Amino acid sequence: MTQQFPRFQPGKAAIFSGAGQPFRLVEGEVPPIGKGEILVRNRYTTICGSDVHTYCGHRKEPGEVVLGHEIVGEVLWFDPETSMEDYKGNPVQIGDRIVWSIFAVPAHTAPPRPDMPQKSDGLFKYGHAPAIHNDIFNGGLANYCVLRANTAFLKISADIPLKVAATISCAHATVAGGLRIAGEIKGKKVMIFGAGLLGLSCGAMCRQAGASWIGLVDNDNTRLQWGTKFGADEGYLFSNYPDQHTKPWPDADIVFDMTGNADAMNAGIGLLALGGCAVWIGAVFPSKPVQINAEQVVRKLLTIRGLHNYNYDDFVNAALFVENNYRKYPFEELVEKEFKLHEVETAFGFANREKPVRVGIEIS
Amino acid sequence: MTQQFPRFQPGKAAIFSGAGQPFRLVEGEVPPIGKGEILVRNRYTTICGSDVHTYCGHRKEPGEVVLGHEIVGEVLWFDPETSMEDYKGNPVQIGDRIVWSIFAVPAHTAPPRPDMPQKSDGLFKYGHAPAIHNDIFNGGLANYCVLRANTAFLKISADIPLKVAATISCAHATVAGGLRIAGEIKGKKVMIFGAGLLGLSCGAMCRQAGASWIGLVDNDNTRLQWGTKFGADEGYLFSNYPDQHTKPWPDADIVFDMTGNADAMNAGIGLLALGGCAVWIGAVFPSKPVQINAEQVVRKLLTIRGLHNYNYDDFVNAALFVENNYRKYPFEELVEKEFKLHEVETAFGFANREKPVRVGIEIS
Repeated sequence: MTQQFPRFQPGKAAIFSGAGQPFRLVEGEVPPIGKGEILVRNRYTTICGSDVHTYCGHRKEPGEVVLGHEIVGEVLWFDPETSMEDYKGNPVQIGDRIVWSIFAVPAHTAPPRPDMPQKSDGLFKYGHAPAIHNDIFNGGLANYCVLRANTAFLKISADIPLKVAATISCAHATVAGGLRIAGEIKGKKVMIFGAGLLGLSCGAMCRQAGASWIGLVDNDNTRLQWGTKFGADEGYLFSNYPDQHTKPWPDADIVFDMTGNADAMNAGIGLLALGGCAVWIGAVFPSKPVQINAEQVVRKLLTIRGLHNYNYDDFVNAALFVENNYRKYPFEELVEKEFKLHEVETAFGFANREKPVRVGIEIS
Repeated sequence: MTQQFPRFQPGKAAIFSGAGQPFRLVEGEVPPIGKGEILVRNRYTTICGSDVHTYCGHRKEPGEVVLGHEIVGEVLWFDPETSMEDYKGNPVQIGDRIVWSIFAVPAHTAPPRPDMPQKSDGLFKYGHAPAIHNDIFNGGLANYCVLRANTAFLKISADIPLKVAATISCAHATVAGGLRIAGEIKGKKVMIFGAGLLGLSCGAMCRQAGASWIGLVDNDNTRLQWGTKFGADEGYLFSNYPDQHTKPWPDADIVFDMTGNADAMNAGIGLLALGGCAVWIGAVFPSKPVQINAEQVVRKLLTIRGLHNYNYDDFVNAALFVENNYRKYPFEELVEKEFKLHEVETAFGFANREKPVRVGIEIS
């Protein structure tokens, strides 16, 4: 008994055409869903810092896009003759709650390195793809999303609050990648620059991974106060660095930079103990160069590692981390204000003006 | 039958008192050799670049020293009631040819990290220790050396030319450490900045480790010409970088810096392919900062790692590399001129003026 592709209600998508231009809420038909693809009903999208950068014109998209890549949704349809499994091999049914990787590697494309699928040629990225014709359902600011074949997606528990689940596929997965390249965390002293969602997630993940001490640095005291709820032992105002008047900042075995600020990256390297490792994640925009004292890097046997996006293992680890810990750390509270899809203009204005950790878009 | 400590001929040592002051050749009695110590008859010492730096006053020693830490010698005596074994557990006899680590960790001292014994508190370094009273036999520019307990030493074949064996304990061991932290070499494209002994050894080691392509960069064409004999596929004059007129320099998966030159380190990072790793070894002196484009490090997922000296595994691997390959690569030819111990002043003058890859001191 072959099931026909059902007729779905037309969907809505908020089209972004460029900085300074208002979002346009457009309606469109659900396109046919091909083999290996999944039609998802988006349930919730959080606005990532990079979405706000795009909104402000600090980074450019190629034409019109449907922004939003921190998304959680429900499986609405896939070819019923396919036995669909998630990335971990769990069978998937219509109605299952899922999150998916921000990128999809094109079919028959080998990643440039096995551990870096996110750098494959011709990579497709949700929330960054051109919104054209009937292909507008490829981002979070829409009520549908069509998952391409080869998209790593994971079934998650419906108990995880939507606003927390949405952040798995960007913030938490990237942080999981940071921990992977930092090496062993257990027993290590960790300093985290930047107390946004990445920094706070990093605090919690390092705490769960057995760090012996965790410090958090930011320019904003309100954000630093979040720190203690997310595993941090101490918070430091960056404006006090270097501070001759109070005790010196402690050494760290591992420093994470979520800021992309050259002065913060410099300061981080200065804190590293013998054999220490600096993980740079935040520097995804042009900035002044980081001035590195190479003699210090050599004599202290330091490591500096950059990370952009994440790989499949990181995504799996992030989902596992959130599933195991969403009750322990109040990630829900970091979505400081919620809007509906038709309020997207107001939501971005708020995000840009008030700098909340996250703004959420409920999609109904 | 307890063997008494025999009387040895008094020894000679060339004392260095500071830049601009002539070496003094002094004579001294052999001190009593304690349990776990070894009296070595030095056979050959090569003058390392860092010795020349000290000679010129670019780096300072604490008082008078016997320079020279690239040394090969013969076991002359140890407590006959001790069953002496080298670092690999091979039994050692009087008369055996040995090389030893440039450092000795004090007894009952735990290294700060298991993989970094060279950074232990109170570390003793041959060729860098104060030459005082009857403790002048602790460097290469003398005809004896007293090996402290806890010195990692290795028995080596007497077939290895002395001038090649001498360089195991500094140049080759450091390069072996560089390969260790660079990760997998097999199939990788490698660019090496600096065609001195470290760079040439690195070329040969990477060739043996299965690199798919090896480039060598230097300011000196003569040195670049050595490259092809030491595994390099191509040589590049650094003065031609960046060269708009000829083909662009190729990307590299791994870049080694043996120069300590900030411009070279910058250029090296610029050549790195996705996921590439820069290993910095040369920057053991103050220099202008290296200007790092952090966005490039992040988006290309690059790694930068510093190395100072080496650990025991590196020392073992270096000795193995030399033993297996001294016939394949003409390391002998890199010791461009030889002197006797009493000609040490002339030797350093020559080394400083003519910049040979190495100058050798035959010790008889």
